Amino acid sequence: MRAAVARDNRLVVEDIDDPIPGPGEALVAVRACGICGSDLHALQFAERLVEVMGESGVSTSFDPARDYVMGHEFSAEVLDFGPGTTDAPVRVGDLVTAFPVAITASGIEPIGAYSNVYNGGYAERMRLTAALCLRVPNGLDARRAALTEPMAVGRHAVARGAVTERDAALVLGAGPVGLAVVAELRRLGLDTVVVSDFSPRRRAVALAMGATDAVDPARDDAAEVASRAASGKQLVVFDAIGVPGSLTLAIKAAPMLSRVVVVGSCMEPDTVTPLLAQTKQLTVAFSFAYDPIEFADTLRSIAEGEIDVTPMLTGTCGLDAVADAFVALGDPEDHVKILVEPGGPSGVHSL
Amino acid sequence: MRAAVARDNRLVVEDIDDPIPGPGEALVAVRACGICGSDLHALQFAERLVEVMGESGVSTSFDPARDYVMGHEFSAEVLDFGPGTTDAPVRVGDLVTAFPVAITASGIEPIGAYSNVYNGGYAERMRLTAALCLRVPNGLDARRAALTEPMAVGRHAVARGAVTERDAALVLGAGPVGLAVVAELRRLGLDTVVVSDFSPRRRAVALAMGATDAVDPARDDAAEVASRAASGKQLVVFDAIGVPGSLTLAIKAAPMLSRVVVVGSCMEPDTVTPLLAQTKQLTVAFSFAYDPIEFADTLRSIAEGEIDVTPMLTGTCGLDAVADAFVALGDPEDHVKILVEPGGPSGVHSL
Repeated sequence: MRAAVARDNRLVVEDIDDPIPGPGEALVAVRACGICGSDLHALQFAERLVEVMGESGVSTSFDPARDYVMGHEFSAEVLDFGPGTTDAPVRVGDLVTAFPVAITASGIEPIGAYSNVYNGGYAERMRLTAALCLRVPNGLDARRAALTEPMAVGRHAVARGAVTERDAALVLGAGPVGLAVVAELRRLGLDTVVVSDFSPRRRAVALAMGATDAVDPARDDAAEVASRAASGKQLVVFDAIGVPGSLTLAIKAAPMLSRVVVVGSCMEPDTVTPLLAQTKQLTVAFSFAYDPIEFADTLRSIAEGEIDVTPMLTGTCGLDAVADAFVALGDPEDHVKILVEPGGPSGVHSL
Repeated sequence: MRAAVARDNRLVVEDIDDPIPGPGEALVAVRACGICGSDLHALQFAERLVEVMGESGVSTSFDPARDYVMGHEFSAEVLDFGPGTTDAPVRVGDLVTAFPVAITASGIEPIGAYSNVYNGGYAERMRLTAALCLRVPNGLDARRAALTEPMAVGRHAVARGAVTERDAALVLGAGPVGLAVVAELRRLGLDTVVVSDFSPRRRAVALAMGATDAVDPARDDAAEVASRAASGKQLVVFDAIGVPGSLTLAIKAAPMLSRVVVVGSCMEPDTVTPLLAQTKQLTVAFSFAYDPIEFADTLRSIAEGEIDVTPMLTGTCGLDAVADAFVALGDPEDHVKILVEPGGPSGVHSL
């Protein structure tokens, strides 16, 4: 089958072996797969990521020096099942998405990220753990269903911040992660969600997804705008940027005794002033991914219209154009979320 | 009266004006006043502290270029009251301690730290807000009563970590802050409290104050020892060191999904790896000081024998020797907590 293979920090499109589903596994045809910022990171910083996983105590057999196929934000159609898979919660022909891990005899293996074993959605077909497949309900289309994963990242970050509808929020960064946070905050019922981003396009998307104010930090002080808008409510600050310096921005923006949630992933060491966080007595919650229940409920939220992902869906491309899409995503004015659709256009098309 | 005055980043002993208690204020004679690490910091980094206070949004009129008298860990005897102070909770002759702030018409003013207005306990006498004075109960002596303040720092840090008796703890650093954390954790009922410190003396004091294990990080990996000792319990890690690099030590020592409490004050910028905290999904709570209820209950704990501060009381000196005591505290093998006792010895005497 055709796949966009990560090799030597580049993407190459070629034919690779067809995945063969094992017992308990489903064979699926990828319908849509979002390109995640972490995929862009992985291509550039794969060795560093493996190093940090090791320091975190996560055991991984992933070797970025060997070929791998990324793409963990997928929707797909079930084609077949591995031998003896009798109790799958989905059927052949179903449109599904899945918490992107495989449950194997030797443990949990990621799918489409940090794995040389399971290919991700930048390919025509994948194998998934059948028990983890979720049927896409309510006639939700494949493109929106593929957004379940990134939106679940926002749901988890908001949960890590212990946010309630009585709080106000400042979201630093309106990339896909920040937008997912915005959407979840609005779903929760917050009436003050201020976003900060240098990009006019991303600010416009943030407003379309429910941000109550979108600040250009080149012109205005986002912390000041948010603090004024919060008018007495507890302000929770999200670092959805994830570059050196962004944690400091969040710490500076956070009022006394407040919470900061770090959800953007900073690939490099960063310099902070612990004393500032200490005199403010901040609580900094670092957020990563989501749990299976958050994932499933995010799919439900999208399918029931509690969250509309349409404004952030900006592009589509076929497998041949994944590398072009990676480049396009480098410009925040150009695209927010590009979906890879096997058999899709040979360039990046706007939606 | 005699006082050890901070001037130009040095301590000089001289006669200064006697404090005159205003309405609602008590005049007290200092009996004992602990030397705090933050006093050592303040003498060296006063300008930086004022800068960070400003960044935190704390308004202060403190000017480190003008004279000030430090000492906020005090016990004292009530001598008199200001005019019209009829409802004081203490009487002349009482031994008292107090949450070290003054409530004034223009707001809250710290006492003995970052104030040019209210002198601290490195002096013969002080004025305190009468309503905040707590009578020292149970015949507790002035030396142990003076430890209320530093022990309250430990109480607050443990509360910031939302620690319960079902948790285990690793305390990095066995200076007074770390020891206060240890004492509070043991009071709470934790049966696994591992301390790490390079100093044999401080490790011995930590064990005397209830640490269940004291690791020399030059020989053993404290994180490994603590994780083994926790044996399945949730491990909470306290950074009670507060130097560049110590937050990273804490982040590295913390297991997946755990809490870090930063209670040591790092006076300089620090470099961290946010990605490591993120892949572990840590919650980092920054802790500063304590609240008035924690303060009052800490006095009760000491007076009722729930916490024995004796092992950390290592020295005493008169006002003339405060500067010597500051030097002595630079060597962790030499002293842990030195009390200034006006009229005490002209050098630093061991207890």
